[in-house]
Amino acid sequence: MLIVASDAHRAHHAREPFPDAGRLMDPPEVPERVDRILDAIASCGLGPPQPPRPFGSTAVTRVHSAAYLEFLEHAHARWRATTGRDESSEAVAYARAIRDQPFVRPEHVVTQLGWYSHDTDPILAGTYDAAIGAVDVTLTAWEAVADGRERVAYALARPPGHHAAADSFAGYCYLNNAAIATQAWTDRGARIAVVDVDYHHGNGTQQIFYDRDDVLFVSLHADPAFEYPFFLGFANEEGRGSGVGRNRNYPLPAGTEWNTYTSALEEALAAVRDFGPDAVVVSLGVDTALEDADTFRLVADDYPRLGAALAGLDRPTLVVQEGGYCLEVIGRNVVAVLGAFT
Amino acid sequence: MLIVASDAHRAHHAREPFPDAGRLMDPPEVPERVDRILDAIASCGLGPPQPPRPFGSTAVTRVHSAAYLEFLEHAHARWRATTGRDESSEAVAYARAIRDQPFVRPEHVVTQLGWYSHDTDPILAGTYDAAIGAVDVTLTAWEAVADGRERVAYALARPPGHHAAADSFAGYCYLNNAAIATQAWTDRGARIAVVDVDYHHGNGTQQIFYDRDDVLFVSLHADPAFEYPFFLGFANEEGRGSGVGRNRNYPLPAGTEWNTYTSALEEALAAVRDFGPDAVVVSLGVDTALEDADTFRLVADDYPRLGAALAGLDRPTLVVQEGGYCLEVIGRNVVAVLGAFT
Repeated sequence: MLIVASDAHRAHHAREPFPDAGRLMDPPEVPERVDRILDAIASCGLGPPQPPRPFGSTAVTRVHSAAYLEFLEHAHARWRATTGRDESSEAVAYARAIRDQPFVRPEHVVTQLGWYSHDTDPILAGTYDAAIGAVDVTLTAWEAVADGRERVAYALARPPGHHAAADSFAGYCYLNNAAIATQAWTDRGARIAVVDVDYHHGNGTQQIFYDRDDVLFVSLHADPAFEYPFFLGFANEEGRGSGVGRNRNYPLPAGTEWNTYTSALEEALAAVRDFGPDAVVVSLGVDTALEDADTFRLVADDYPRLGAALAGLDRPTLVVQEGGYCLEVIGRNVVAVLGAFT
Repeated sequence: MLIVASDAHRAHHAREPFPDAGRLMDPPEVPERVDRILDAIASCGLGPPQPPRPFGSTAVTRVHSAAYLEFLEHAHARWRATTGRDESSEAVAYARAIRDQPFVRPEHVVTQLGWYSHDTDPILAGTYDAAIGAVDVTLTAWEAVADGRERVAYALARPPGHHAAADSFAGYCYLNNAAIATQAWTDRGARIAVVDVDYHHGNGTQQIFYDRDDVLFVSLHADPAFEYPFFLGFANEEGRGSGVGRNRNYPLPAGTEWNTYTSALEEALAAVRDFGPDAVVVSLGVDTALEDADTFRLVADDYPRLGAALAGLDRPTLVVQEGGYCLEVIGRNVVAVLGAFT
């Protein structure tokens, strides 16, 4: 199995606490997450990881708007010029547009931050380079599978991507790595199933493909009735237009253990088999772990089972890293899933 | 001149610093603002202030959606139940909807906070009661003018209102006092001109009346190209549908002094005269003062001139308090405007 990783992600490291429901939270999406996964990969004989090649922005602009990309690239420089803050400062949105009002494309960086985001994540000086680096990691892994050189590849992407929409960032995600690879695959004529097993609903990926009949999006996640991203991920969101039936959400209750999880997983994978995709993209979050701060309770033995179920689809597969924040178990659980493919 | 005030506003006093462009800012919209205005009113022989009568919510629901009102009334109790935070905690939005996505009416309080706000203002335990109190103050003053008992009345409203939209709060504003009085007046068949002289654009008032031909909204304010509320207040926003031509924005540069201000004011008031309203509602913010933290540079002598220009419209007039945050001059400048009407 090809494993692709790079150091570009280190340019992005948010440190300022942010508001969560009723408390300030230290950003858990840290560079050490990658180190821990690489340690686990090394110690179990997967790898060694390969470096990415640069892809430029062509594939990115098939998913994200040019205006959003331009914003992301220059936002922090504009922020510094406007506020007088330094290189280490974190640019955060506060003002938002009133719904359904006439809107001129925003010029001021504070306006842009409010327009091009859907929560309170920051943009740092290195965010754009790190996000482009994660896309390169993802597309390098994807290309090996798409070209038939590998059956399965793993992209150790950071920052993650599945909360990033076509023109807004949120949830530690700036560019939607999995969606960009999926789009690149469909641009070669393939029909793709995206299977998102992160603890949080992949609202960005859903939004990007919501009207499409050549991409099936299935997601298992904590019910947005109580959990981030709150606004999307309900079971009645089934796609729109020619995409009707191509979006399947499996919201699960707090405290979900493997018994509950596996039932939803089997249903989701049956939907994938019915769709009959040419290839599969897995958005792999392991924040479903008991040890993670969130509410699900999957244990060490569950991750090889999850991997076996995904591998059982028996399709060319790209696995893209999303969430997982408990540094003690993130590596163990990721390699448990990957090991099932070998 | 009738002056109406009450103590209901004291139930709302936000204390937690909030993000502004690049720094944390202590909330400047404090109860002492009202005390200072009342002191100035007493010392210059205006008044004494009269208490409001309760109006209930009928007039409010002519402007704000029932769902928004229900949210505002119960948000803090839901916040406490969900987060376990106490009575003194401040409920603040962070997660937002992705634009143009399917949306189920939000149930979770964090979802509601994100949906029913357009910046990072908090809801406190006393916010709803204070906001309803400000509406009562405003409608009591309005009724005296609408019934013909007074030619001019002043509503010492707090919290202010002009940034509150039909179903979202922001900018220290929760219910749009001036818009609610304006709507009540139009419900009696009157054509109304709203003249907003607050330093910040009255984006909520604009949104509420943007499609209406019986309400002219004119606003002089700092250019949203550099100043809050950023998204609205540009000169090319002229109304929509039957409201085309009924919205006039006069964005002004940083550092604006009276010479520049008065030119725009004369143009705005000429538009009001052309419209020929039955009555006028003034959204009176005095955060245009040199001493205020914002960028305009109006001085003590300019406020009697502003008052004289507004009084020169010679229409039944309701003056509603909006912003103004420099405690040393807020009272002086408000009574200077009011004095021109006597």
